[in-house]
Amino acid sequence: MQRYFLTHAVAPTIGTTFTVSGPDVKHWVKVMRAQPGDQAEFVTSAQQVLVATLVSTDGQQAVAKVVAVTTPAVELPLPVTIACGLSKGDKPEQIVQRGTELGAAAFVFFDSQWAVAKWAPAKRARKLERLAKIAHGAAEQSHRTVIPTVTYQDNLAALLAHTPYDQGIVAWEESAKQGESSQLVQTLKRMTAPQRLLAVFGPEGGLTAAEVAQLTTADFVPVGLGPRIMRAETAPLYLLSNVSFWCELIAR
Amino acid sequence: MQRYFLTHAVAPTIGTTFTVSGPDVKHWVKVMRAQPGDQAEFVTSAQQVLVATLVSTDGQQAVAKVVAVTTPAVELPLPVTIACGLSKGDKPEQIVQRGTELGAAAFVFFDSQWAVAKWAPAKRARKLERLAKIAHGAAEQSHRTVIPTVTYQDNLAALLAHTPYDQGIVAWEESAKQGESSQLVQTLKRMTAPQRLLAVFGPEGGLTAAEVAQLTTADFVPVGLGPRIMRAETAPLYLLSNVSFWCELIAR
Repeated sequence: MQRYFLTHAVAPTIGTTFTVSGPDVKHWVKVMRAQPGDQAEFVTSAQQVLVATLVSTDGQQAVAKVVAVTTPAVELPLPVTIACGLSKGDKPEQIVQRGTELGAAAFVFFDSQWAVAKWAPAKRARKLERLAKIAHGAAEQSHRTVIPTVTYQDNLAALLAHTPYDQGIVAWEESAKQGESSQLVQTLKRMTAPQRLLAVFGPEGGLTAAEVAQLTTADFVPVGLGPRIMRAETAPLYLLSNVSFWCELIAR
Repeated sequence: MQRYFLTHAVAPTIGTTFTVSGPDVKHWVKVMRAQPGDQAEFVTSAQQVLVATLVSTDGQQAVAKVVAVTTPAVELPLPVTIACGLSKGDKPEQIVQRGTELGAAAFVFFDSQWAVAKWAPAKRARKLERLAKIAHGAAEQSHRTVIPTVTYQDNLAALLAHTPYDQGIVAWEESAKQGESSQLVQTLKRMTAPQRLLAVFGPEGGLTAAEVAQLTTADFVPVGLGPRIMRAETAPLYLLSNVSFWCELIAR
């Protein structure tokens, strides 16, 4: 069933009618060609999912009526923020799209010492807007109940100052090279829901030793992510898959 | 260090000299601009890694000398074959590229009942050649010691008849919808290295109930891959990440 995120408050009770407008009505009525009686899902800001029936529409707005209310557990019990050094081309788009499917709570892109890409100040807002749109679409498609946020920070210090987290990890190639393979598991073992994990990844060129030191000083744990070398946009997906496996498949 | 796969036998002993030719010499000498004394890694068919020094080159061929031999454990202890229904656009390329980084041993694309894409017989060989090239490049980049194979099968029955495996699983959306979350873990618990896992994924539209029945009759286990809906090209990456986490991070 098609899913949309509500931008205004709707009472989560059966029989409530509400108005759908903007891009969602356009998509539901024009793209999906919904007819009166057809259903879609609408997610409230409290992560409830309202199944609603189309009552009537004039093409600009639609009236829908709630017929069922559920609170599905589709969010990672340990919310994960993915922080990535700026990488080239469409890698940020790929990280946001797939990372949203894999359950990330938030994305932060930060300028790092070996970043090969730069986000000029004039272009930053537009880039973030585009990434937010990708997160929104992927959250609808993957049936999330939260749209991940996407933000930018000027450097690692700003990232640490402005990102809330309970436990930090840094994916460091040198850890992997030395055969380190237990720190990620140990870290996940120590965490309990709903503690927040902040996972920092370098750009293509990696993080500098100084940046890694800055992170370990802030109690970030350097973790190896297996023996193969992953590209900048693949490592966050590996991590998110692992957190899901740990919390959602093993722990149940 | 740059890595290449040897196409001919080279004795894995320090001091052995051998010839590099074809695309590898072009890449090493022309693209990477290797000078005599520079080093690269060459992988033998027995998964040994020879560190070799460039002795001399005329641009067409190069003579290299082995200075170190290692046998790194970079392959998944449980070899995984990823079998996917034909999906649209560049999804097969993405599955092969990222799946190789994440350790897949082989890829099989098969025509399934709800496949939206078709590989016309006349184009099949060229498609497979292109995917094999992507697997080769990704294996070099991710420092694998095996290049995954890429093959095509006409349907599910042909896939089952021609693919060697010890345990089969099928990612089935209905399993996930019913909240099934333990079968993947149970299956991995039952397996011991070097047993081979064959993981079957549908195309965008999924597998039909008849196809899933065909697989369960052949003792494939339907597995849920977490509560979120993943696109056709993301689910295999989730599975491979999980197998790595299980075998390479948890088990050590």
